[in-house]
Amino acid sequence: MKAERLNEILDQIEQDLGISERIKIELKPMKIKAASISFKSKTLRINKNMLKDLDEDCIRYLILHELIHYKLKSTYHSDRFYRQLDEKISRSEARELEGKILRSLLELNNIL
Amino acid sequence: MKAERLNEILDQIEQDLGISERIKIELKPMKIKAASISFKSKTLRINKNMLKDLDEDCIRYLILHELIHYKLKSTYHSDRFYRQLDEKISRSEARELEGKILRSLLELNNIL
Repeated sequence: MKAERLNEILDQIEQDLGISERIKIELKPMKIKAASISFKSKTLRINKNMLKDLDEDCIRYLILHELIHYKLKSTYHSDRFYRQLDEKISRSEARELEGKILRSLLELNNIL
Repeated sequence: MKAERLNEILDQIEQDLGISERIKIELKPMKIKAASISFKSKTLRINKNMLKDLDEDCIRYLILHELIHYKLKSTYHSDRFYRQLDEKISRSEARELEGKILRSLLELNNIL
């Protein structure tokens, strides 16, 4: 996926969540993580090693997931976190995308 | 879940996959892994820290997943691996269970 397209998706989701700060997106090879966000540097990182396995819906999910962490200024997957997520994506769709992401992580780590 | 029930599920799946060796099952707190299998000691480990989040279908999936590794004597998630998995569980069901497992892993690690 091209950087331009990534930034388009990022912009859409930022708007949708009502985030006004400018978040940067970065592709970075990581060992364990699928994605991460730094509240301080306002940088969302996606694991470069997983990109080849992930379709646009998965990327969109990762960006949504990280931006909800940013919005809540919390890295926890609390009830509050999942309530926000549920507003933007159905549980069954989220579950399916999370399953795809797990499969991609399996290629990088022996988590099972 | 009781040890007895775990062993029942293990026995069922071993039979179904045509594995004649006796595999031991062990609950062990692990940091990164959901489950693992040792070919040498014939021990299947499930992450004790995740048990509270996982329903019986997820546990069954983890056991099936590890026993396919054992049967193929390979820790890779190759096409051959997924062909075996597809014979035992539909893709959509597997995806959903993998999504649940990812969510449980999220509680233990900041993988996203």
